[in-house]
Amino acid sequence: MSRLTELLQRALQQQPAGALCVAYSGGPDSTALLHALAQLPEAHARQLRALHIDHGLHAESRQWSEHCRQLAQEWRVPCLVLRVEVAHERGYGLEAAARDARYRAFALSLQDGERLLLGHHRDDQAETVLLKLLRGAGPEGLGGMRATRPLGRGVLWRPLLDVPRALLRAHIDEHALPCIDDPSNADRRLSRNFLRHEILPRLTQHWPQAVESIAHSARLNRSACDTLERQWRSAQVALLDSTNGSLDATGWLALAPALRHPLLDDWLHARGLPVPTTAQREQIERQVTARDGQLPCIRWAGAELHVWKGRLWALPPQRTIDPQWQATWEGEPLALPDGGSLMLDPAGRLHEAVTVRLRRGGEHLRPVGDAHTRELRDLFQQSGMPPWRRLACPLLYLGDELVGVADRWFTPRGAALFESAGAIPHWQPAF
Amino acid sequence: MSRLTELLQRALQQQPAGALCVAYSGGPDSTALLHALAQLPEAHARQLRALHIDHGLHAESRQWSEHCRQLAQEWRVPCLVLRVEVAHERGYGLEAAARDARYRAFALSLQDGERLLLGHHRDDQAETVLLKLLRGAGPEGLGGMRATRPLGRGVLWRPLLDVPRALLRAHIDEHALPCIDDPSNADRRLSRNFLRHEILPRLTQHWPQAVESIAHSARLNRSACDTLERQWRSAQVALLDSTNGSLDATGWLALAPALRHPLLDDWLHARGLPVPTTAQREQIERQVTARDGQLPCIRWAGAELHVWKGRLWALPPQRTIDPQWQATWEGEPLALPDGGSLMLDPAGRLHEAVTVRLRRGGEHLRPVGDAHTRELRDLFQQSGMPPWRRLACPLLYLGDELVGVADRWFTPRGAALFESAGAIPHWQPAF
Repeated sequence: MSRLTELLQRALQQQPAGALCVAYSGGPDSTALLHALAQLPEAHARQLRALHIDHGLHAESRQWSEHCRQLAQEWRVPCLVLRVEVAHERGYGLEAAARDARYRAFALSLQDGERLLLGHHRDDQAETVLLKLLRGAGPEGLGGMRATRPLGRGVLWRPLLDVPRALLRAHIDEHALPCIDDPSNADRRLSRNFLRHEILPRLTQHWPQAVESIAHSARLNRSACDTLERQWRSAQVALLDSTNGSLDATGWLALAPALRHPLLDDWLHARGLPVPTTAQREQIERQVTARDGQLPCIRWAGAELHVWKGRLWALPPQRTIDPQWQATWEGEPLALPDGGSLMLDPAGRLHEAVTVRLRRGGEHLRPVGDAHTRELRDLFQQSGMPPWRRLACPLLYLGDELVGVADRWFTPRGAALFESAGAIPHWQPAF
Repeated sequence: MSRLTELLQRALQQQPAGALCVAYSGGPDSTALLHALAQLPEAHARQLRALHIDHGLHAESRQWSEHCRQLAQEWRVPCLVLRVEVAHERGYGLEAAARDARYRAFALSLQDGERLLLGHHRDDQAETVLLKLLRGAGPEGLGGMRATRPLGRGVLWRPLLDVPRALLRAHIDEHALPCIDDPSNADRRLSRNFLRHEILPRLTQHWPQAVESIAHSARLNRSACDTLERQWRSAQVALLDSTNGSLDATGWLALAPALRHPLLDDWLHARGLPVPTTAQREQIERQVTARDGQLPCIRWAGAELHVWKGRLWALPPQRTIDPQWQATWEGEPLALPDGGSLMLDPAGRLHEAVTVRLRRGGEHLRPVGDAHTRELRDLFQQSGMPPWRRLACPLLYLGDELVGVADRWFTPRGAALFESAGAIPHWQPAF
């Protein structure tokens, strides 16, 4: 039994039961991993299968898929080939887009509790840590790739993360295994290849243990992050209002930076929002202590964050609204410029057409049952309407007279209009 | 005012008052730092002075000192030259030995609250982080150099840690400042120089922001460490028995690794002992759970650690003791082979010479007031004598009869001997 097969046998014994699926690109690493596993009856007993992703990015990619299918068959391993579409957007690298598409396919293909095995080894880990360092990462990034993490309905598993590349190559040589040579692996314009070919060999020349040391560093960083994570998760529970998703702003700011930053990032992730840059986060930290009456809003690509009532509120970016927008409304569902809507409940028709406008400043009305005319600004503030909704709030006019504000306040004339229609307006803001 | 002088002016405003002392080697970095500071009246108002260390390692080192003295005088800065002896031991690099000697001299020269300013800049910081990574460091090492830390009676301060080297060089060029070119800076066999000349330029070629990113990474790591440190310091208070310096073993083992490791290292440092390697620490972790009756001892260069009574005990390495050692004792202070001593209290002279031996196994005696003969082994155990003292404990014989054990147990014959001398024995173990 080869050294690699032995290592995998031991690794399997230490992992909980569950089907095994190897991510098999056909390159040397995944070839060694799949072939070594295929030697183990206990791997077949765990329904060992292979998954090959065809990114369709290379002229020979169909031949590569065929190569993988044939070898897997030879080793008596069922092999599924999935072809994915790589959406290559501007400003986002092709490699990153291919990776995203690949992991989406992995996640979809995994069965309950199935383990997706990746061939990443110690040399890959060292490269990852260096790449993260060169992007200014903290302990989380410098922790490198995780050995396991949830993926779809299964678990992603990198059983060879402590194993040097040389051991995988020795297995390839020993068994004379044919491998695909993806030409992009030689492209030194790609950061990882630049490190692999230009930097790591020079480091190893001066520090023969460089790769081992960097991988050790990664383990220490991962362990530090895990400890910090326990702390900030428990802080998050205390700071989060789960009814509205907002976060206690001063409590958050009082945390040590090493807890405050991952807590914020996780909170945003959980809302499907991207995280801010360091400069943007520092802006948030400064604005948290803004004086009363200010309504700070910090925006970055894909998100905006409001500080309001001593709490943080995160939203997708709000559309820019033309304050001059207006529409005629007779009760039919009406799309508002922020993405929200206005309708009648129950559905119906008004006897008189209303003009819907947005706030332009200086509006006032005397609500039913109130002895005085009120400034709209004061009504908004007193009612606790979130500031990001105020500019999008539909104001209802009959002629030039403001007779209603969304579904909240009505003048006697406005109230009479809806009464006669036997319905009330219902406003659904975008956020 | 040059950009560098401006930066220093701002930095001075943010640092608490205190005299200023620049560590002035005469190289470009410290030359720029000292010259830029010498332009500031507020620096002179804080008794700006320079300190030059002559390591005596280079043929021209006296000329270097003279160069520094003259320039400082020209800039109206008092300059003290200290010559140090560099103890270059085998297995310890010359650079490291020079550094130790230099910092010892710095520490001794600093006045109460005085700030020692070092010229380390952002490029140095990036090199430090990479060096640590290549030695497998965790977040503490990857946090790089600290901006400030206590040193002697003063504070070490690196005001330029966020400033790129180029800015210091620009200051040198602008003022045409003469600098010493230490030829060892070009020696690429030295790790730091290898990084500086072989690695960093290549990294910067692919990642123009490499140095900035690595320095940013260092700040994040430092911040993570600071947060973890607050945690493990409070755990240490709970686990430490300050009366005997021992540590609760199972409580320590129950901590997360990211707390357990720095806590142990700090505990050993506080005892003036070196820290274990990763492998040795893992051995400690395994031995903590040793069964009752076992007395685990883990040794490494410069220290030994015992697990006893559910606690960790750290000692300097104990001398190897010849169990056949013996000496004749008539009451005079007697040096014992472990480094401890035996004497009479008050000083005096025994009427009969005693033979002092060490434990060889199977010893027993009947102590005064005891109806039965006791095994020495049982007496040791019941009395709670630390195991590392048992082999060094002096046994007192008259002829071949064991009549006393250190200052603890005596047969009636032994008791009579000391009674007639009007004194009791006093045993001082080495630890």
